[in-house]
Amino acid sequence: MLRKTRLFTPGPTPLLPAAQNAIAAADMHHRTAEFREIFTRTLSDLKTFIGTKNDVLILASSGSGAMEAAVSNLTSPGEKVVVLTAGKFGERWRDLAKAFNCQIELIEVPYGQTFDLGTIKSKLDGARVLYMQATETSTGARHDVKAIAALLKGTDALFVVDAITGLGTTHFEVDDWGIDILIGGSQKAVMIPPGLAYLSVSERAWQRMETAKQPRYYFDLRKERKSQTKGESAFTPATALIAGLAASLDYIRRAGNGNLADGRDALIHNAETSAAMVRAGAQALGLKLFAPTCPAAAVTAILAPAGVDSSAMVKEFRERFAMVVANGQGEMKGKLFRIAHLGYYDYLDAIGVIGALEHVLLKVAPSHKFELGAGVRAVQEVFAGQFAEAASV
Amino acid sequence: MLRKTRLFTPGPTPLLPAAQNAIAAADMHHRTAEFREIFTRTLSDLKTFIGTKNDVLILASSGSGAMEAAVSNLTSPGEKVVVLTAGKFGERWRDLAKAFNCQIELIEVPYGQTFDLGTIKSKLDGARVLYMQATETSTGARHDVKAIAALLKGTDALFVVDAITGLGTTHFEVDDWGIDILIGGSQKAVMIPPGLAYLSVSERAWQRMETAKQPRYYFDLRKERKSQTKGESAFTPATALIAGLAASLDYIRRAGNGNLADGRDALIHNAETSAAMVRAGAQALGLKLFAPTCPAAAVTAILAPAGVDSSAMVKEFRERFAMVVANGQGEMKGKLFRIAHLGYYDYLDAIGVIGALEHVLLKVAPSHKFELGAGVRAVQEVFAGQFAEAASV
Repeated sequence: MLRKTRLFTPGPTPLLPAAQNAIAAADMHHRTAEFREIFTRTLSDLKTFIGTKNDVLILASSGSGAMEAAVSNLTSPGEKVVVLTAGKFGERWRDLAKAFNCQIELIEVPYGQTFDLGTIKSKLDGARVLYMQATETSTGARHDVKAIAALLKGTDALFVVDAITGLGTTHFEVDDWGIDILIGGSQKAVMIPPGLAYLSVSERAWQRMETAKQPRYYFDLRKERKSQTKGESAFTPATALIAGLAASLDYIRRAGNGNLADGRDALIHNAETSAAMVRAGAQALGLKLFAPTCPAAAVTAILAPAGVDSSAMVKEFRERFAMVVANGQGEMKGKLFRIAHLGYYDYLDAIGVIGALEHVLLKVAPSHKFELGAGVRAVQEVFAGQFAEAASV
Repeated sequence: MLRKTRLFTPGPTPLLPAAQNAIAAADMHHRTAEFREIFTRTLSDLKTFIGTKNDVLILASSGSGAMEAAVSNLTSPGEKVVVLTAGKFGERWRDLAKAFNCQIELIEVPYGQTFDLGTIKSKLDGARVLYMQATETSTGARHDVKAIAALLKGTDALFVVDAITGLGTTHFEVDDWGIDILIGGSQKAVMIPPGLAYLSVSERAWQRMETAKQPRYYFDLRKERKSQTKGESAFTPATALIAGLAASLDYIRRAGNGNLADGRDALIHNAETSAAMVRAGAQALGLKLFAPTCPAAAVTAILAPAGVDSSAMVKEFRERFAMVVANGQGEMKGKLFRIAHLGYYDYLDAIGVIGALEHVLLKVAPSHKFELGAGVRAVQEVFAGQFAEAASV
């Protein structure tokens, strides 16, 4: 059979065709009224998408560039910062804080788990910033941003959340909860290629920048704010990707019948439903989730059956179905595989990837027993439940 | 008449259609054999394009990100660096060195001029790095990279050249001259949208990084080298733009009949010819060049006639012809306009922009006298000279 290449990876994610066309067509200069209009509208739409009244900025970098900005703009060397890590992207916060010579209070839990609130509370004294992920892409775990925000209320610590896979898959109340910087990336729920990062910045964060003493230039947020409020940017912006982002936000608005916030909520619901379908399908096949107590809606990490190398499963997905499924990262490579369901993802994707998983298991894990079709049926049952259809005949 | 939008700006430049299509189609994940093959080939092709045996890296940022990398990876706070500035981009080196607390030996000449070699020589003592532009995009001036390279031979100073508009418009002997870091950007002669920077890094530069003490993370070149030699990248790469760059380098190779270096030389010759055509056209209309003694092949800066605001000319180009011509930058805004001729630029572009310039002058500078058609004819004469055609009948 034909094999259409399909991404089931937690970024880059499948591209929105309308955004692909907008990107290809974006033969424009950034110092023009045409671009300023697109850029200003996109920044405004991003505010709605993020759900904040804070400033929102776009950077020409991958998400890690915005993570660096959240360290270099908010800290001075030697200052205490709290870093929560439960996977590869938590370790990125740790490495960044180390590169900028912060005094790091590291709260580390095993891959696939989440954090104890009491432990966090006990470590906050004197902290200038707390850094965390909303969802840890490497493990498929979702962390409790709201509860951690509550712990920080009334403290001097700024709250920085990497929501690169969290945005568009999880609900945030950025302003009410007091998230000072929330970070997103282009290659995630907004359905365009990598190369853009975006972030919301609170008034408290702007104030901190007045005294923060790290060297910074390309990621100097105050300079960007000055330019971006005028529809400009401090450095040449990634024009084509911004045109794609504009098209993608228009698509999300249409999904909300003209209301972008409603479209965003529909997108979150879509990810949650897709995640529930994939989890149900995998479990119906006798597979175990890696983060069962705190599963993210962005990506599901599934353990390979005992004695089976997940790399072989990933390879079989690729070769037999042209489906790109992610292996485990770091210490989890070979132990689990990850199926993403964020952004441009629908019923056929969910049912298809679980159907393919059944064939992959038959081939790669012949001693793992299950009934052919059981996974797909479980996916259908979740979908039917959404519409209160009868799940059995 | 119809007005097709056309960029005559020194970046973003007109896009190569084959690259636009490749960008739109690039629905791929970066941890796949498919992407690794494209990325590895593109890095190898970039070496040929730059003309170096040194390592070449690609960063997900605009060119200024690579400029920051050349400061944060090569210096320690307090170290002496020499910065040459003759325009807005020279000032960017100055601001970067300042942000990273270097001791700056600033060699500054007025906009539109170039540097005195004796002055540079007298300032090199104890310098750890010299930073300059190959061509100053804000003024259309070309600096003598080869001569300055010769001054640095045998000194301890590393040589860093911003060739963002220089590459593909100017000849460099990176290894022979001893250029330790040479920087390029995607939205210039390689005919794709902004969002990628690339740079070559010498062995001497790699050694310096072992002791350089600036904080750096996203632009940590040693980390990128470790990844990129394996076809990976330290952070999510801008996949779609890299696919576009691959297509563009293929196009340049075809222009060299299968030899990429020949295609690169043809591209440089194209820029030189186009520049000669535009200069001749402007001068035939009685206009003055802003950098007559050291004109760049990338972009020509032309002074508005006395008493005429160049902003009005830029506006007329835009409104009447949908041609995007650049205004002066910084202190030169309103005094000059800039016509770029780098990358995807041909005979029709050269003849068309000078033809339009004649109509712009008739409208905006009615007291400036010239004969209609004189500019276009001068353009044709340069072109005819290329082929030893009779320039008059």
